[in-house]
Amino acid sequence: MKYVYAFCEGNKDMRNLLGGKGANLAEMTSIGLPVPQGFTVTTEACLKYYQDHEELSEDVVLEIRDQISALEKISGKKLGDVKNPLLVSVRSGARASMPGMMDTILNLGMNDEVCSGFCEADGNARFVYDNYRRLIQMFADVVKGFPKSSFEHLFDKIKKEKGVQLDTELTAEDLKEVIDEYKIEYSRLASEEFPQDPMVQLLEAVSAVFRSWNNERAITYRRLNDIPSSWGTAVNVQEMVYGNRGEDSGTGVAFTRNPATGEKKLYGEYLINAQGEDVVAGIRTPQSIETLNEVMPENYQEFVRICKVLEDHYKDMQDMEFTIENGKLFMLQTRSGKRTGQAAIKIAVDMVKEGIITKEEALLRVDANQLDQLLHPTFDKESLQKSSVIAQGLAASPGAASGKIYFTAEDVSKAYESGEREIILVREETSPEDIEGMNLARGVLTVRGGMTSHAAVVARGMGTCCVSGCSELSIDANKKTIRLADGTILHEEDYISLDGSTGFIYNGKMATVDPEISGDFETFMQWADSTRVLGVKANADTPKDAMEARKFGAEGIGLCRTEHMFFEETRIFHFRKMILSETEEARREALEKILPYQREDFAALFRAMEGRSVVIRFLDPPLHEFLPKKEEEISQLADSLGMSKEEIHTRILSLKEFNPMMGHRGCRLAITYPEIAQMQTRAVMEAAIMVEKEGLATNLEIMIPLIGSMKEYLYVKNIVLETAKEVMKEQAVTVSFKVGTMIEVPRAVLISDEIASEADFFSFGTNDLTQMTFGFSRDDAAKFLNDYYEKGILEQDPFKTIDEEGVGRLVHLGASLARDENRDIELGICGEHGGDPKSIAFCHKIGLDYVSCSPFRVPGARLAAAQAVIREKY
Amino acid sequence: MKYVYAFCEGNKDMRNLLGGKGANLAEMTSIGLPVPQGFTVTTEACLKYYQDHEELSEDVVLEIRDQISALEKISGKKLGDVKNPLLVSVRSGARASMPGMMDTILNLGMNDEVCSGFCEADGNARFVYDNYRRLIQMFADVVKGFPKSSFEHLFDKIKKEKGVQLDTELTAEDLKEVIDEYKIEYSRLASEEFPQDPMVQLLEAVSAVFRSWNNERAITYRRLNDIPSSWGTAVNVQEMVYGNRGEDSGTGVAFTRNPATGEKKLYGEYLINAQGEDVVAGIRTPQSIETLNEVMPENYQEFVRICKVLEDHYKDMQDMEFTIENGKLFMLQTRSGKRTGQAAIKIAVDMVKEGIITKEEALLRVDANQLDQLLHPTFDKESLQKSSVIAQGLAASPGAASGKIYFTAEDVSKAYESGEREIILVREETSPEDIEGMNLARGVLTVRGGMTSHAAVVARGMGTCCVSGCSELSIDANKKTIRLADGTILHEEDYISLDGSTGFIYNGKMATVDPEISGDFETFMQWADSTRVLGVKANADTPKDAMEARKFGAEGIGLCRTEHMFFEETRIFHFRKMILSETEEARREALEKILPYQREDFAALFRAMEGRSVVIRFLDPPLHEFLPKKEEEISQLADSLGMSKEEIHTRILSLKEFNPMMGHRGCRLAITYPEIAQMQTRAVMEAAIMVEKEGLATNLEIMIPLIGSMKEYLYVKNIVLETAKEVMKEQAVTVSFKVGTMIEVPRAVLISDEIASEADFFSFGTNDLTQMTFGFSRDDAAKFLNDYYEKGILEQDPFKTIDEEGVGRLVHLGASLARDENRDIELGICGEHGGDPKSIAFCHKIGLDYVSCSPFRVPGARLAAAQAVIREKY
Repeated sequence: MKYVYAFCEGNKDMRNLLGGKGANLAEMTSIGLPVPQGFTVTTEACLKYYQDHEELSEDVVLEIRDQISALEKISGKKLGDVKNPLLVSVRSGARASMPGMMDTILNLGMNDEVCSGFCEADGNARFVYDNYRRLIQMFADVVKGFPKSSFEHLFDKIKKEKGVQLDTELTAEDLKEVIDEYKIEYSRLASEEFPQDPMVQLLEAVSAVFRSWNNERAITYRRLNDIPSSWGTAVNVQEMVYGNRGEDSGTGVAFTRNPATGEKKLYGEYLINAQGEDVVAGIRTPQSIETLNEVMPENYQEFVRICKVLEDHYKDMQDMEFTIENGKLFMLQTRSGKRTGQAAIKIAVDMVKEGIITKEEALLRVDANQLDQLLHPTFDKESLQKSSVIAQGLAASPGAASGKIYFTAEDVSKAYESGEREIILVREETSPEDIEGMNLARGVLTVRGGMTSHAAVVARGMGTCCVSGCSELSIDANKKTIRLADGTILHEEDYISLDGSTGFIYNGKMATVDPEISGDFETFMQWADSTRVLGVKANADTPKDAMEARKFGAEGIGLCRTEHMFFEETRIFHFRKMILSETEEARREALEKILPYQREDFAALFRAMEGRSVVIRFLDPPLHEFLPKKEEEISQLADSLGMSKEEIHTRILSLKEFNPMMGHRGCRLAITYPEIAQMQTRAVMEAAIMVEKEGLATNLEIMIPLIGSMKEYLYVKNIVLETAKEVMKEQAVTVSFKVGTMIEVPRAVLISDEIASEADFFSFGTNDLTQMTFGFSRDDAAKFLNDYYEKGILEQDPFKTIDEEGVGRLVHLGASLARDENRDIELGICGEHGGDPKSIAFCHKIGLDYVSCSPFRVPGARLAAAQAVIREKY
Repeated sequence: MKYVYAFCEGNKDMRNLLGGKGANLAEMTSIGLPVPQGFTVTTEACLKYYQDHEELSEDVVLEIRDQISALEKISGKKLGDVKNPLLVSVRSGARASMPGMMDTILNLGMNDEVCSGFCEADGNARFVYDNYRRLIQMFADVVKGFPKSSFEHLFDKIKKEKGVQLDTELTAEDLKEVIDEYKIEYSRLASEEFPQDPMVQLLEAVSAVFRSWNNERAITYRRLNDIPSSWGTAVNVQEMVYGNRGEDSGTGVAFTRNPATGEKKLYGEYLINAQGEDVVAGIRTPQSIETLNEVMPENYQEFVRICKVLEDHYKDMQDMEFTIENGKLFMLQTRSGKRTGQAAIKIAVDMVKEGIITKEEALLRVDANQLDQLLHPTFDKESLQKSSVIAQGLAASPGAASGKIYFTAEDVSKAYESGEREIILVREETSPEDIEGMNLARGVLTVRGGMTSHAAVVARGMGTCCVSGCSELSIDANKKTIRLADGTILHEEDYISLDGSTGFIYNGKMATVDPEISGDFETFMQWADSTRVLGVKANADTPKDAMEARKFGAEGIGLCRTEHMFFEETRIFHFRKMILSETEEARREALEKILPYQREDFAALFRAMEGRSVVIRFLDPPLHEFLPKKEEEISQLADSLGMSKEEIHTRILSLKEFNPMMGHRGCRLAITYPEIAQMQTRAVMEAAIMVEKEGLATNLEIMIPLIGSMKEYLYVKNIVLETAKEVMKEQAVTVSFKVGTMIEVPRAVLISDEIASEADFFSFGTNDLTQMTFGFSRDDAAKFLNDYYEKGILEQDPFKTIDEEGVGRLVHLGASLARDENRDIELGICGEHGGDPKSIAFCHKIGLDYVSCSPFRVPGARLAAAQAVIREKY
């Protein structure tokens, strides 16, 4: 195996081996662009490094030596040569871009001798000394892991001694002094001298970059961006070029099109007489790229030409870095540019129009996750720069929101009634009681709960921004305060800002920008729709949700959680009365009162969906979720029911469960209280008949949750069929409807052939299936999953992206067993994975018929489904 | 298909079709014993009856008519004949005996005409009228389901009018009056006359007996005795004989050997001039069977002869019913007699010695479940007759106990310290904190929780009697009272009695009888051991448990739950300190304090097991289970830790989980806090080394709980290996040990091939696997599972007997995947199913290596494992 490739040996298709940066440097070399030459140590070498217990193997070292020799020939310079030294940079470069996550070292090859010889040869001693002192500083930090402060402190000390403010005011002599002090500090910390052998420097630097693949930042970034740790990083060793060699030098970055809007116009900035890090540091303000035409017209024209070459060559918007050294332009990097969702769509559609790419290519160019964000507000750029992050939780529901914090749904309601609109609801964890408050709030923040916690699921459904599982905060509900990790206390009505797309929480109020949806969006989505095979439905509980779902292109409602209809004030009263009833008769009486409301809701859903499929799931949560928790509410309820508080307490206690997620819920409720299923069947059938009588079509599918055995299913199905027959007989009308079940308990998967023989459809409830397959409570796992990510045991949140090895295997098994038994069965998924692009690709692969997700995720799901088709082809 | 068989057409091997009673009546007929003739309507006819929506099909009716004609020929009597009427009984008879659970009707064929004609012919009008009135009464009750009280009330009224006390004092004329009143009442209730057509009576009676297969009593009985509802019952129609025709008549029951002790001696009782129901009713005191020799020597001699014939024929102890009608002996029933565990063993061993049966047959003769009961006290018979049942829960841990009730483990300790020994601990549900209290109590009663709840598992482990999940009780922990379903209130220190073998709870104090274990037991268990293939280990947490386990023949410890070692006072303090520590350092410091205790415990276990395998499971429960709950204890803890109560509360709150069963527990703890696994590895390795240095052998297996992914397993295994290496290096000794895991999360099953490649053994933790496969929380499911049983959705508690269709399929899959990958892997089971005979048979079938169960269940498991081998042969 070959572990090291010269730039002239590679090309852009070797990304997996050379990393993105390396592959593109090779590609630019091959098409004749001016690139400082060098070589890439492959990702395979990185994996080998880890296999060999973090040591560079002999073959790798030998190949690096060979490549250095080759580079010396190309450059006409020599590593360690006193007069004409080869200086190199060492930079990471993984398959996927991970900007700023790993380490870089510059100026390798410099040492005491080179430094003095080079000074003489170059004539610019200040420049040479500065490079040397930067090397020592970076080497100490990156390779040795010594605290940055030790060196910064020395540097400041000397600046103070010399009475200067800026680094640039230090003279060559001053810098020589800095170098001496640095070397003393280095040997104190390292118990050895700073290495003078350039090859030792180089090999240590390569190892350090490999190690930085597993620093904490990088691990977190990979998890958030679905990058497997098994990929490893490549390392690029490249001859140094300097943008800080005078007024005929400079450095800059540019995009071939505007990454924010997609506009077809060069977009970028540069600095004269500066290095890359100066652009980033922000001490001097960079100039807009067009102005380079005035300062260095030749270089500018050449750069514009290269931009065109690169975009045409890569057929995508490029993000480039360049350096001009003494009037000569060098390209240091090119890559596909990151862009906003809006820009992504515009560029994709434009490029199709320009004939650069096909529609299929265009569909692959947009990240399906971005579409969701595109539909929500974001923070204004300026606000973002000014604000400070105070904590980070899970990016549970996208969007940006600023507001005053309130700690209960009730307080939210009160604030709203008194005219407040900027509201953030902060809760330990939400429960169905909080829905009203969540609906009024701009954003929701919870301390517990993962990507499929109640807060996350409901907020995504509403399109409300939500950050969940922010375990570094502690809430004191009584005092109405939040305590930050650093001890700061926030009080009720203090402002905070949430970014539900990143999970960041900011202090204070921030300005937001509303999304703009262009005509390109429609065009683009049409392409997606005509490509995809999977159906896309929405999870929608209310007529309002249903309207939203249709707006976003849902082909039906894949999940209507009927219990969400019970929380409105008058309904919850009757529902609670039902729960507290001791006899079937009393329960029936209370249910009788709820029936008209449910019927009206269902009718509105049918009307909104105009004949599209509507999957109604029967009551699912345990009954205790519907009972009040506060003494005050319990008193009220006792009064209005004519019961004693004692009695209500006793009943609440008797309903309490140790593990409600595995308790008395789902179809288990219908088995204990068949009258609930009867009422729900009656409501939904009467609604369907009513709407059909209005001349509208309906397409009703009744879904029985949490089935684990055939007899369970048949028992509840029978209630549905009997009641439906009764209603149709009463009304002398026939309405066709389907009956099916959720497959969400592992046992149901094992017998799904049997169940399929009696079911019209299955919807895989992968939220619960994930909980029970892993034995992870979605409300509790957030706390310990962090340790799993940090230790590399899990790379992704299995509640966000389906765990193909475990849960996915069960879904596949269930789908296969079901289809073998019942060829016509409709198979879908309605867990949160239904909106996750990677999981959608999996659903496509195993041949499900549809996915169902929250309305705002529908466009992304449509795109992901199209992408799955295209990717399958290649 | 033939649905009805004459007695002369069947034999004893047709039990599945004819039911036990029918098959034995046929067998007795075929070997020439005096049996009143008749016929059996098959279990197939019963199933058909249900398929046909509870109607007798025409073929069945036709066959019954044919058989009646045949019976008329045999008996020389005629159905409905006025002079010489054929009267018949209709009795249920299922495959398995279900005494008293289903219905019986006698004297069918009687009507107005028959009654008067028969009176003339027979001459005993009183006898004839009494039979007619009994028929009407039974028919109204069993066939029509009218309240018994209506008829009893009329009967009492007439007795009062006539001024008599006893039924027998009523004259023929009086009874005629009763009949008239009965017929009026019947037609009032039924809106039709009492049927005069004997064939109508007969067919209705057969249907009613079929229906009684699904009465509530029968369903419950089947569930408790593992009888599938799919078997159905047969119905026996038999010519009536009467033991109440005068002083030369009588009726009785007898066993060929003593059913309580097994002694080889006829055992039974009889009444002169009486019917079977009189023996049961207990108004007259029956005579011991030997005395029949004095009254009717000829009949007695014949009966003794028949007993011998039957026992020799069936090669088992028989339980028989007989009637003598006018000096002629009739056998009405024979069946294998129910017997105590003690008797079962004595009879089995004796019969082998007598050369009647083989050892294998003997092994099949004893119910493996009975062995557990055999090792525990039972209630004294007299006490049982005097006591009243006040509630019933689950038979969670066998044995009988009387005592004063206490509501907290603390109160139990106090009472114990003050000298009280008769203690019953009553809790909503127990937690590990209660272990000390459970240990001191004679019995444990809980309101929640099923067969594998904490209370059940721990009590079984201790051999303490326990009734769990008695949801009809409500406990008020503050007031220290129990409220019974009928509103009665019991207070602290009131006496109750628990039968952990039946789940019955009695009022007041009852006498118990200690078990007697005979030499036959040893002989019998040796036969079992030389037959079985499966290994039998015990779940044992303490040296005391381990000694008990060895006494009962365990071949090793299959599960040592190390957390149970943490609850002793000094240890729990350090463990709590560990939990409340904020830094790893502080945690390590606290763990350091626990290490010596664990080491000592482990060493004691190794010593007790003398080189037999000891499987040590690392810490499993969530940490919050170890923290105090009461304010008082929290204050104490705060004081001794020098923390504020506030801080402790905050930490308790932060550890709280919504679904602890799927929370931060098992190997997840070792991932967050590797130092815990390090300490446990160190303790167990140091203990093994210590014991080996004493010259004893050890056989250590370290078990990592709750594994769900390969990386999780490797992470913890690596901690174990590294720490063990360290300890062995320190001590300069090598000890061999195995590392394996529990397979208890569905995901682990799916990847068990992968895990098997790195594991020395698997232990299927079917408690948790059942929870997650069904999505049933073992602590909550008891509440709704009753509805499942009643509605026929589940027939067995899946926590008691393994659910072969679902959970069993997963175990089988996991075992197969594992063996394919690693031929040498040792496979066992350590869930509660490890002690359940039916589940043990399943483990044998799928080729596991061993089962592990609580010490008291070990003998039963040894027997069940032997039975599995024998049954497999045939």
